[in-house]
This record gives sequence, structure tokens and C-alpha cells, in this order.
Amino acid sequence: MWTNQPLVRRIVELALEEDLGTGDLTTDLSIPEGATARAEVVAKEPCVLAGLPVAREVIRQVDPDLVVQDLAADGDPVEPGQAVLRASGRAASLLTAERTLLNFVMRLSGVATATREFAKALEGTQTTLLDTRKTTPGLRVLEKYAVRVGGARNHRMNLAGGVLIKNNHLALWGADLKAAIRRARREAPALTRVEVEVRTMEEVRRAIEAGAEMLLLDHMTVEQVAEVVAYCRWKVTLEVSGDMTPAKAREMALAGVDFVSAGSITHQARWRDFSMTLTPLPQAAADVPTS
Amino acid sequence: MWTNQPLVRRIVELALEEDLGTGDLTTDLSIPEGATARAEVVAKEPCVLAGLPVAREVIRQVDPDLVVQDLAADGDPVEPGQAVLRASGRAASLLTAERTLLNFVMRLSGVATATREFAKALEGTQTTLLDTRKTTPGLRVLEKYAVRVGGARNHRMNLAGGVLIKNNHLALWGADLKAAIRRARREAPALTRVEVEVRTMEEVRRAIEAGAEMLLLDHMTVEQVAEVVAYCRWKVTLEVSGDMTPAKAREMALAGVDFVSAGSITHQARWRDFSMTLTPLPQAAADVPTS
Amino acid sequence: MWTNQPLVRRIVELALEEDLGTGDLTTDLSIPEGATARAEVVAKEPCVLAGLPVAREVIRQVDPDLVVQDLAADGDPVEPGQAVLRASGRAASLLTAERTLLNFVMRLSGVATATREFAKALEGTQTTLLDTRKTTPGLRVLEKYAVRVGGARNHRMNLAGGVLIKNNHLALWGADLKAAIRRARREAPALTRVEVEVRTMEEVRRAIEAGAEMLLLDHMTVEQVAEVVAYCRWKVTLEVSGDMTPAKAREMALAGVDFVSAGSITHQARWRDFSMTLTPLPQAAADVPTS
Amino acid sequence: MWTNQPLVRRIVELALEEDLGTGDLTTDLSIPEGATARAEVVAKEPCVLAGLPVAREVIRQVDPDLVVQDLAADGDPVEPGQAVLRASGRAASLLTAERTLLNFVMRLSGVATATREFAKALEGTQTTLLDTRKTTPGLRVLEKYAVRVGGARNHRMNLAGGVLIKNNHLALWGADLKAAIRRARREAPALTRVEVEVRTMEEVRRAIEAGAEMLLLDHMTVEQVAEVVAYCRWKVTLEVSGDMTPAKAREMALAGVDFVSAGSITHQARWRDFSMTLTPLPQAAADVPTS
Amino acid sequence: MWTNQPLVRRIVELALEEDLGTGDLTTDLSIPEGATARAEVVAKEPCVLAGLPVAREVIRQVDPDLVVQDLAADGDPVEPGQAVLRASGRAASLLTAERTLLNFVMRLSGVATATREFAKALEGTQTTLLDTRKTTPGLRVLEKYAVRVGGARNHRMNLAGGVLIKNNHLALWGADLKAAIRRARREAPALTRVEVEVRTMEEVRRAIEAGAEMLLLDHMTVEQVAEVVAYCRWKVTLEVSGDMTPAKAREMALAGVDFVSAGSITHQARWRDFSMTLTPLPQAAADVPTS
Amino acid sequence: MWTNQPLVRRIVELALEEDLGTGDLTTDLSIPEGATARAEVVAKEPCVLAGLPVAREVIRQVDPDLVVQDLAADGDPVEPGQAVLRASGRAASLLTAERTLLNFVMRLSGVATATREFAKALEGTQTTLLDTRKTTPGLRVLEKYAVRVGGARNHRMNLAGGVLIKNNHLALWGADLKAAIRRARREAPALTRVEVEVRTMEEVRRAIEAGAEMLLLDHMTVEQVAEVVAYCRWKVTLEVSGDMTPAKAREMALAGVDFVSAGSITHQARWRDFSMTLTPLPQAAADVPTS
Repeated sequence: MWTNQPLVRRIVELALEEDLGTGDLTTDLSIPEGATARAEVVAKEPCVLAGLPVAREVIRQVDPDLVVQDLAADGDPVEPGQAVLRASGRAASLLTAERTLLNFVMRLSGVATATREFAKALEGTQTTLLDTRKTTPGLRVLEKYAVRVGGARNHRMNLAGGVLIKNNHLALWGADLKAAIRRARREAPALTRVEVEVRTMEEVRRAIEAGAEMLLLDHMTVEQVAEVVAYCRWKVTLEVSGDMTPAKAREMALAGVDFVSAGSITHQARWRDFSMTLTPLPQAAADVPTS
Repeated sequence: MWTNQPLVRRIVELALEEDLGTGDLTTDLSIPEGATARAEVVAKEPCVLAGLPVAREVIRQVDPDLVVQDLAADGDPVEPGQAVLRASGRAASLLTAERTLLNFVMRLSGVATATREFAKALEGTQTTLLDTRKTTPGLRVLEKYAVRVGGARNHRMNLAGGVLIKNNHLALWGADLKAAIRRARREAPALTRVEVEVRTMEEVRRAIEAGAEMLLLDHMTVEQVAEVVAYCRWKVTLEVSGDMTPAKAREMALAGVDFVSAGSITHQARWRDFSMTLTPLPQAAADVPTS
Repeated sequence: MWTNQPLVRRIVELALEEDLGTGDLTTDLSIPEGATARAEVVAKEPCVLAGLPVAREVIRQVDPDLVVQDLAADGDPVEPGQAVLRASGRAASLLTAERTLLNFVMRLSGVATATREFAKALEGTQTTLLDTRKTTPGLRVLEKYAVRVGGARNHRMNLAGGVLIKNNHLALWGADLKAAIRRARREAPALTRVEVEVRTMEEVRRAIEAGAEMLLLDHMTVEQVAEVVAYCRWKVTLEVSGDMTPAKAREMALAGVDFVSAGSITHQARWRDFSMTLTPLPQAAADVPTS
Repeated sequence: MWTNQPLVRRIVELALEEDLGTGDLTTDLSIPEGATARAEVVAKEPCVLAGLPVAREVIRQVDPDLVVQDLAADGDPVEPGQAVLRASGRAASLLTAERTLLNFVMRLSGVATATREFAKALEGTQTTLLDTRKTTPGLRVLEKYAVRVGGARNHRMNLAGGVLIKNNHLALWGADLKAAIRRARREAPALTRVEVEVRTMEEVRRAIEAGAEMLLLDHMTVEQVAEVVAYCRWKVTLEVSGDMTPAKAREMALAGVDFVSAGSITHQARWRDFSMTLTPLPQAAADVPTS
Repeated sequence: MWTNQPLVRRIVELALEEDLGTGDLTTDLSIPEGATARAEVVAKEPCVLAGLPVAREVIRQVDPDLVVQDLAADGDPVEPGQAVLRASGRAASLLTAERTLLNFVMRLSGVATATREFAKALEGTQTTLLDTRKTTPGLRVLEKYAVRVGGARNHRMNLAGGVLIKNNHLALWGADLKAAIRRARREAPALTRVEVEVRTMEEVRRAIEAGAEMLLLDHMTVEQVAEVVAYCRWKVTLEVSGDMTPAKAREMALAGVDFVSAGSITHQARWRDFSMTLTPLPQAAADVPTS
Repeated sequence: MWTNQPLVRRIVELALEEDLGTGDLTTDLSIPEGATARAEVVAKEPCVLAGLPVAREVIRQVDPDLVVQDLAADGDPVEPGQAVLRASGRAASLLTAERTLLNFVMRLSGVATATREFAKALEGTQTTLLDTRKTTPGLRVLEKYAVRVGGARNHRMNLAGGVLIKNNHLALWGADLKAAIRRARREAPALTRVEVEVRTMEEVRRAIEAGAEMLLLDHMTVEQVAEVVAYCRWKVTLEVSGDMTPAKAREMALAGVDFVSAGSITHQARWRDFSMTLTPLPQAAADVPTS
């Protein structure tokens, strides 16, 4: 995971606050004080694993005395029945952490799996899969991490991470494309790129003349895309988007674009099923500190 | 929406902070100062609408001077092309709000739509659809709102909202079911209920004798469920769960249970597509304050 | 304490921020660097102890290197002069933590003591004492914990923790009681209960017919209460409230109600006096890490 | 109120978050949409009013469209039945705000009333009543405001607001009182004062020689206090503390001290009873905006 | 300002919290209730103005009823005695806001002025001035805004805003430069650039062969820089850094680099002096709402 | 440092959040997993060191497993090339912490150095140097700490830390100086002082008669100051301010004032240069925990 631990910390805090509310009634009322257990997070369907560092953070916040061990790594393909994480210590803490921990792992493994399935369609090509900003509000940084785990690349992390001029917006206010691109290239932070959305060959030509570094070919046919590639391959980077499917992505890749982007790898990702199994430990065997 | 406005405020703050980062580069660099527009949020596929109040809050936080008007109501079935919200004012503000606003509406309408589809299978029965705690971390309160919009009922909002004793956990530590239920009924907040998860007829009997008010029949067959209903219909409330589908839910309903619960209405809900269209306004026509 | 540690953490953070402001001037200016001490929190009047986990959290936040030991447990009756907690380490840290720590323990022991005194009046009856939402703003979760420590039960933790329909409000808008109760029972989260406030026998009858699960008999005489009990004992749960005193509570209990609720156990609870004694330690004896 | 509005805003946010949880179930389920009302906050026992600005902030946060009017001012003595605040608008908002609003007014009026009762004992003397840091965690700034409303003066707002050297602490580490006072007077912020706690005439003499500006005479008899006054009246400011009662305070005042401090005006303050009455408004008459 | 209003809101909240503490004692004790005034923020030395939107936010947070009017715009050169902002309303609010407001304007105008002075040295060249991450902790987004106001361009907003591989770090762990650059270009978000720090001609060659898009020439002489320009002008973007002065920057610009970066425009920027003048208003003339 | 650790914690959190954004791209992409190193923070110019505890907190938050060792102490004069802090562990963590850590140490050492240079001008006199509230928004508590490290004293920490009546403000509203001072002395917290700003001998006389405890002589000449000293030396404390320089400060000191205050020690303080050097460690030698 990129070194953004403080941000992950805050996301987990909110998730726990949300699920604990004023306290875990059931655990408090039914688990004997001092009971200890070993918990394992187990996959219930095949998928690409993502979210272990988040799961560890959930555990750490609920009870820093729990002892945790990874049994797999983010990015691993996992099979039904395979344990991916083991934690032992106070049984009450494990039960309190269970749902929040699983929700993160299920969601993020869903994104990683959907991404890998999509990315596979591009294997053997020179084209890279990109994500979009169509992510669950509040989970952006984690879902974009899962996208990387799944084998795609991030487009930009947020509105500050680069310029994407939607051509039609310029049109709306009668702006001069050339002036707009020039301004963006002159004023945006030096380490960001300027991309321009285009829908016709005419727009492609104008954007390149105006100095665009990267074009987003939106809702073009493969034939149109091939024409654009022929026209400007070595001049600018090319990205294709619009109702993308793995098959269509492969066609576009073969037409020679640099990037294919798909919102569906995040917003249509299906959660993958995981559960937590508990084994009671004899008091002595538990790794619970005495303090 | 339940009167939890401050909580919604905070969720939206985080989502905007996440998407704006250090600022919306593109908008700042390409939209002429003073440009005004009218935006409409438009459905792109049939669905049950949910999330308008959240959309309004996004708009309010980005720019309190924008003038907003609902064109539909949460819970309405909407058709492709139908506008559900109109906002007018500074074009830059509309563009900055766009993605976050759409992400909320797309996700929540997805949950409401999935819920309604499921709930329809129970029409004409006495059985109510319930949700679970398998919700996206950070969006619990909004997704549970969308569930209500879609026509189901919440099970509990979080771990503090009622007791659900998982029978096997008791078993793990050799706890006395009767003692556990009694303790829960004696010590949990007076306005919460105590539910017990059971998997066999034997467990059903023991739970009822022990004073359970509500039973969660987990992964039972329709035949087993029918037997439980026959045994205890008027004594306790009955909920059925486990890999639920609409068809299976209807079978269970006809067998006479009070509730059917399905995690899939939240965690498998597919986002519904919405977009935002922009129409430039002549400066004079815009509802932008002069201050 | 219920497993709501993150919430406690936040309350303590605010309390320390409030008392430290920009720093503890006196300690910084008068305590020799490196000075170590042993502190004991000592009761100065008889009471029921509550708040030790909060005290530990105060200490942990001020200085995680302090070594803490409980000398009593929440719920214990303590006598003047009895030490309930011992902490050792940097003298400066102990002095900085002192007031905030004591304020929590004094307030919470006050609530636990007031609760137990009240609860004793119900001993030997089948009736349970409940609290209300008349708690100090910001300390709800802790004061309700102290109520449990003192021997009463929580009514609901907040406005989301169950439904309590005040009958007269319905009246205000000419609402149909039956429709309102039915709606609440159909739409509130499945693990919450629906209670209805009533003031007359007529209202009792109407509420029961309408499907109320629990009645709040407000400001009724013992005779009226007895009549209600005779009428509906086995049909609904009964709670009595209104200017409650221990003696009146016992009378109500003997009349056969399930619950008696008293706001006074929180809002009229008198703080119990505790102080902190300090013993200087030779540097070597102190449990201060060398880092 | 001192100009600390942002701080008050945050305290109210937390109190509402605490009481609303995931939403006000009852109000949402039982109040007809569009219902409007006029609410009045009414005193139910004689007291000194405090907390109206906090009540207004609660109302503003729950629903900025509510129209509010003060009917009395903080510091006013109020009688049973007297309305102190009127608000009108959405009935649902008024009901949601009710408990939090009343809890603040009841607590703060309790502090103001206790303070005024105590302060009256000092009427006709030159002595001023001071508070302490024995305030409810999280409400410090509000309780100290109520103390001022009641007619006393704040001692210091927190540990950063001045130096109070407890003599015995110095003793513990064998510190030189003179050096300590000199250091404090040389290093503490220039606009703060340095006070020293003393218990014997000998300590008084040493503290004055060492340069103390203010003495806290702790647990001294009236006779001892008189002796101190005779010795150092014009040299330093004198404060008396220790199990203070109004009668004892008056004795001390007559002995000539400048200040008497009493923790009981905050930590022993009894909440004063207030309630909220609701009158339904015809839709047209309500001051509810149409937006 | 880039559309990052929520972030600015939070920075101002913290600054006010910091300066108000538990309340503005002096204002509360010395300004007559109801007193109104007109305040003007006035430059006391020549400078480039920056910070008006922040000043407005300070005012809005202290008292939303104050009426504010810009008398100049960020980026304007201002002269001693020139008023740049006018606010009128409650005198107490104006006094409370004064210091925080001035501190922001003084600091940010300092950065804008230092930047413009530096940028002027590059006039008539094709070279652009860049900033660095050497900004005051907590004020990054505002100081980088002031840099833009002053006429320079941002390098990156934070560690997420692009890749800058320090060549020697690679060396430290014996990493293969080519592999590192390739990985960065393949895995960093698509809208970010990859820059490599180099110190010798040999490193320049290796970096370009390895695929670097931008080079940071660190601590090179003008002669060395000229050699690099001759070698790779059209292949990569060139930035020069290291103890930069305006004169040296101009030399480097004439040698043909694209960018010159200077940490001193932020961390060595001298605050520019501004003050606030107050004119009392007759009650009637004030723009204070009556509510 | 004054015992305000939680406040420092929060400032560092914000600074890291600001610099990390969604993650440190370069480190994540270029540092081999498992690489370890030893880092040293090294002065690059002579200065007075300040900020080590803040640097440690930055390190702790980025990676609690890093092992840190102070090589100097705040307040020490340091020479170019001198290492002041050593940390070892994960190389990635050290690189991520680098810039934020250095920014704090550079800024705070700048303030400490500027302060000490100024303070030296007062050596051998009875006069103490004070700071002002002209500090960087968000860093108040740290910059005032650096001021103390440098050898000056704080005036007040914020608007709640004492009363400073600006004479002309009183004038604006025709207030009675005597009444104002009396009110302030009667109502401000007992451990704060009341200071009055004066500009003429006439104002000095009136302020002293009115009971001022401390006078701020603003923009007076040395001659005027000497006259004031002669008039009121033993009656009140005297502070001089206004475009202060070390030389002028010394003149004022010799004229006999108690305090000289200078905003320039904070707002004109020049950052002092520090860098971080890295030495790779063999895996085995690193102090990295195996977990």
C-alpha cells in the first residue's frame, strides 16, 4: 500500500465508530470475561485478495493486544476455504472487529477481482487498464489501492491529481481550446499532465495542435480509434473510455491505444464473500497480555 | 430521511475532501470566472431513485449560493433521460460538485433499486424484507436509508441497536444459552430486542424455552422453516437468512416467517447510472448572488 | 464497560484538550525534570466506584509510559481513605492528568452511587430501574455506563435506540394513534421496541388495542398504575415515570410494573469526592522507561 | 458570553451527535411531514437562567430554518411557568432538538443558580467568589460561563491560564520555594499571575518573601486567615478555599480576604427543571421557508 | 483560488480556535454591547496582496453577520496606506477577528511578494519559476496559492502529486535506475509525471536513456546546465535547483532550462505589514441584522 | 516543552496529512521493500536548535517502529554539519517523514535563533524580551515554545490568556477608561493580568489612576519612555513595543522598562537550513521489528 497510513487510520476510525455506535451489546452481554480465541478470516469464493493491511488496522484499533499474522498477501488469488489472516487474543475483541473487518476485505477483494478479470483481457498487449473517479464516497484511497492490487493503474487520485479538460465544457462557454490547453499546461503543477477529452477526429486535430499531452477518446468506435492512432500515435498518449467491457477493451488495445479506462472495475465490482471462524483457546494458550 | 442531518453533513465533508484534495485543477484553469450554468442530474437507466438529500448537501457544501430544485423524490421509479434534480449558479461550483454528487446518487439508487426488486418478491405476503450490517464502511447510515427507500426495513443500525446472540458462539465457550438470553433480556437497553441465531429444531426449542424474543433461522431449508413456524409461530418473531434470493425469499414468506433478511441488497447492489448535463446561462439569468 | 473504546478515547481527548489548553504552566515550571512519583486515587467519602477505565485512558493519553494498577473495580462500594487506582512514573505527567482524571471518577461515581441508592429501594421486587436521556451533554455514554455499574438498566442510548411515542404529540397533529403505532412497528429497525406514553386508562386501552409493546405510564398515581397492571399485565411491558423517588418507586414496583424510570439518577447525582495523593519515588525505583 | 462561538459550536455538535445517533426514530415515524409548531422553553422551578445562547445554537444546528426569539436573558431570575425562549418552524426539528437543548439549559441554569446562592452570602463585602477546575469534562467553557452569569468570577480557565504552585508538591521533591516562585514569575506568560498554596503562617511568610503575588490559603480556620490578612493584606492577593459553605465564605470575607473559591458551585450544582411545550401551528402561520 | 474551500474552512477553524482559546477576554470586557464599527485592512508597506479570500473566511466564521467588501484583489501590487478590505458590523466581532485575519494576509502577501520579486528576474525568458514543498506545516495549500498569486507555478502539492526520484537514493540501495524509472512510469497515476534528480552529465544520460520525462538538475553550474540543455533540450523537461537567487535564476533561464525552482520564495518570505483601522458607526448606520 | 502533547500530536497529524495526501508516490515506487537505513538530521548553518520533540512526533506517527535518538537538545547552539537527531528503521518511512520533519525543525530553529539574537541585546539588563500574537496561523503553540527556547518569554498564548485594553478602542466608543479597567480587573479570570496600551504621558497617568497593572508603551521615544519610568516605576509593570530592533530594545531596557516586545522574532524569523542524510543499513543491523 502506498505510504498513507494516517489516512487509512482515519477511514477505519469512522467505520468502527459507525458499527460500534455506543457499544457492541451482544458481545458485552454474552462473551465470558477473559475468554480467548483464535480467529481466521477465510475466503468463501475464488477471488483476488485485497485489504489485509486495512484488516490489521481494524484489529489494532479495536484491541492493540490482539496478535495478528498474515496467511496470504494482497494480490494473491485465493480459493474457497483458504485462510488469509489469523488473529488471536480476547474473544470479545475479535467478535467486535469481525463485521467491519470483513466488510473492508469483501469490498476491496471485490474491486481487485473485478480489476484483474478486466486486466486479463489486455494481456499480451501494450495497453494498460486505468480506473476512474467513480469510487465509493469515503473509500477512494482504498478502492484505488485495490485497483492497483488487481493489476490496473490509477488515472488520478482526485481533482487535484491532474487536468482533464472536457472539450464540450469549453464549448459551452465558447472558450478557445488552444488558450485553455495552453493555460493549463502553463499553470497546473509541473508534475501533473494535461489531458483533453475528444469525440471526433476534428477535435483530435485541434487538441493536438493546441498542445494536449494526452487525449481521452470518449465513446469512439474501434474504427475511429484506429484512425486517431494512425494520426497521432507518437505525438500524444491516448486513452479510450466509454461503456467499456473486457472484449471491447481488447479491441481498443489492439487498435493501439495506450490506456483503456473502465469505471466498472470499481462501481460495478461485486463484493467477494469472506467469513471469520473462531476457535476458543485455553486461557493459558492465548497471546493475551496480563496487564 | 431520518433526522440525522449532522451525520450526513460529516459524510459529505469527507467525500468532498477526498475528491477535491488540494483543489479542482481543471475547473480552476478552464472555466471563465463568472460563468454560470444550469445543471440537471439525469437518470441513464431505469431505477428507484435515492440520494437527493445527499446530493443537495454536496451542493450546499461546495457552494451555498447554488439554487437547487428537486424534480423527483427519493423512492420514485425513474426512467432513462428523466431529470431528478436541477441546480443553477456558478458553473465552476457545479463542475466541482459533479462527481461526488453522482457517486452518492448512483450508489444509493443502486441499493434502493436492488432492494425494491427483492421486496417485490414478497408482495402479497405478510413477510418483511430486512437488511444486514454488510454495508460499505463509512456509508452505513446512507445505505440503510436507501434500503428503506427501496421498501425494506432495517434490522439494526449497528452493534448498539439490539442483541443478536450467535448460538454457536455461546457453544464455543460452553455458555448456558438460558443464562445468556436471560442476561441479555435483563441488561440490554429496555427498548432493544434480543434475537438468537439457531440452526436446528433442537436449538429452536431451547432458545424459546430460554426466553428468546426473536429467532434468526440461519441456512435452514423451507421444510425446516415450516416446521419451526408450526412450532412457535405465536411465541416469537421469526427471521430467515442465508444465501437469500428473491425466489427463495418468497418461499420462506409463504412458509410463514415474519422477516427475510438479505445482505445482497446492500453489498451486491449494482450502481445505477446517472449523469449531469450542463446548460450555460446568460450572466443575467443566473441565480447567482452579487455579493 | 461496553466495547466502545474508540468513543471513550474521543471523550477523553476533548477533556484533556479542554484542561491542558496550551499547556500545564505550573507543572512545567515547578516540577524538576526526571522527578518520578507514585500516585494513588483515594476516595474521600463512601460511594459506589465508577470510572476506572476512563481514568486509565486519561493516564494513557497524557503519558503512555505511566504504569497503572487497579486497586478496586467499578461497582465496588468504597470507603473514605480507600485507594482505588495506583499509577507511577513521571511526576509531571501525574500532575497534569490529576484534575481531568478526578473529574471523571467523581462525576461517574456520583451517578453510580445515586443509582445504587435508588435501585436498593426496588430490592426484592420484580421491577427494574431505568435511566433517561437527561444526561450531561457529551458524557451520555459514560453516564449510562455508570448507571449500569450502579445497578440500573439503560432505557435507550439515544434517539436512534428505540421508539417512544409521546401520546400528546400525536394528539397535537390529530394523528391516529393506531396508524402511528402500526407505522412505527412496521418501519422501525426490527431489533427495537415501540413504547407509547399514556396518562389515562382510556389511553392505555387505546394504545394496547393499537399494538403498543410497552407503555410509559406518566405521572399516574399508584392506584391508577395498579388499575393498569390489572388490565394489561401480560399483554405489554409497563414503565412508570414522573417525579420519581425511591419510596414512590417501591410503591410502583409493588403495584406490579416492570420498570420504574428516574432522571434524577443522572441529572441530580452528586459528585463523590476523590483526591490524588503523590509519593515521590527515587529515580531508580520508578517504572519510567529510559527512552 | 465570551466570544468563543466556534468552541460552543463544537460542543453542541458533539451533544447532538450523541443524542441523535443514527437518527431520531420516533420523530421520523410519527410526525406528519410538513407539520409546524411553536415551542416554548419553560422554567418549572425558580432559578437563575443560563444557557440561552447554547439553546439557540442547538436549534440552529438541527434546523437553521427555525425562527427563534429570546423571552428572557441569561442571568435573569425566572419563575415556574415562565417561558424563556420561543422557537417556531418544523415540528420534527423542534422535537429532535428538545432533549439536548433542555439538558444544556438545565445544567447551566443549575450552575448559575448555585453560584448566585453562594455569591449572595458575600454581598456587602469586598470579597469575590471564584470557581475551580472541578467542572464536568467537556463542558468547562460553558460551566465557567454559567458561573459568571451567576455572579462569580473565574479563577483560571485551564492549566494554561495561570500558575498555581501547590506548596506540598515542591516539598515532595525538596524544591526551593523561592527558586520555584522566581522561576514561575520569570518564565510564565507575562499576563498570567503566580499563586502559591499555603497551609501555615510559616508558609505564608516564606511565600511572600519568595515573591508570590497571590496566596491560596487552603483549609485554614477563620482565625488563621485573619492572622494572615493582618500580616500581608496589602502585599499580596488572598484566596481562601476548602470545604467552603456560604456561611463559612461570609466569615472568611469578613476576615478580609480578596477571594473565596468553591468547587461546589459547579460540581454540586443541581440541575434546574425546564420543559418544552409545543403548540401546533396552521401550516400558513408557520415561519417555515418554502424552499 | 483553486476550488478547495472546505480545506480553507478547516485551516481557518484551527487558526481561530488557536487564537480565541476559551474566548477573547479583552473584547468581552471592554467593548460596549451593540457597538458597531467599520474596519479596514490597510497595507503598511508596498507588497503584492494575497489572502483576501482567507480573510473573508475568518470574518465569516467569527460572525456571519459582518458585511465584507473587497477593495483590491489578490495579486494587486498595493501601496502603504491602501485599504484592501472593508468589513462592518459588530465591533466586538471585528476586534476578535483582527489578529488571525492579519496574520494570514501578512504571511500570504509575504509569499506572493517574495515570489513576484523572484519571478521578475525571469521576465523575457521562456523559463518558469517553481516552488518546493518547503512550506509552513499546516499552510501548504495557502502558501502554494500565494506562490501562484505571485506569478510562479507549483511543482507538486504534496507527495502524492507526482514522482521525483532522487538519484542518490536509488544508489543507496543499489537499485537499477532504468528499472526504477520504468516502474514509476508504469505504475504512478497516469496524469502525473516522473522526474529524476541528477547531478552529473553521466547521470543525465542514464536518466534519459532510462525514460525520465523531466530532470531536476541539482546544484549544477551554469556551464554544466548549458551542456545538459545542448544535449537534451527537446527530449525532456529541465528544472534547475540549488541555492537559487534571482540573478542565478536568470542565468539558468538564459541557459535554456524550462524551470527554475526556489524554496526561498516560501520559507524565506518576509511577512508584509498590514494593520486594521476601526471607525465607530452610529448604531443605525451599521449593517448589523436585528435578529 | 510545556506539557501539551495532545495539541502537538494534532498539529503533526495535520502536517502529515497535508504532505502525504493520498500517499508518497516516489517512495512507494522506488524504495525496495525491506530496505532499512539510518537517517541523521544535520544542521547546515549555525543556529539555535528547536523542534526535536516535534520531529520525534513526526517520526512516531509515520512509523512507530523507527528507533530515534536525540544527538542535541532544544536550545543548543549548533554548527554546520552537526547531527541533532538519529533515526533508524524502514528506509521508506524515513523518506516519507523527511520533508515534514525538516520543515518543523527549520521553522522552529529559525524562531529560536531570531529570538536569541534579539535577547542577547538585553543581556546585562533587568529587561525581558516578550513575543506577540503575530505567529503563523496553526503553529502558535510551537512558535511560542521556540520563543522560550530562544530565551524570551511569552506575552500571552491567545486572546484568553490575559487582558490587553487598547486605549484608542475605548476612545472610539467613548468608554470611560477607569470603568473599563475596573471592570476588567473585577471580571477577568483571577490569575490573569490587565494591561493597558498607552501612547502619551497623559494616558499613562490616567491608566495608572484607573488601576492598570501593566502598561504597554506603544511607539514612544526613549525619552518619553524614560519619563514614564521615572513617573511610575514601582507602581506598574512597563512593556515597550513598536518597530523594535535589538539596538532600540537595549536603549529601552537601559531606560528601565520591565519588558520589550518584538513581533519580528516570530514573523520575521528566517528558517534555518537542515537536511537529512541517509545511510543504508544491512537488513540484520536495522532496528526493525520482525512483525
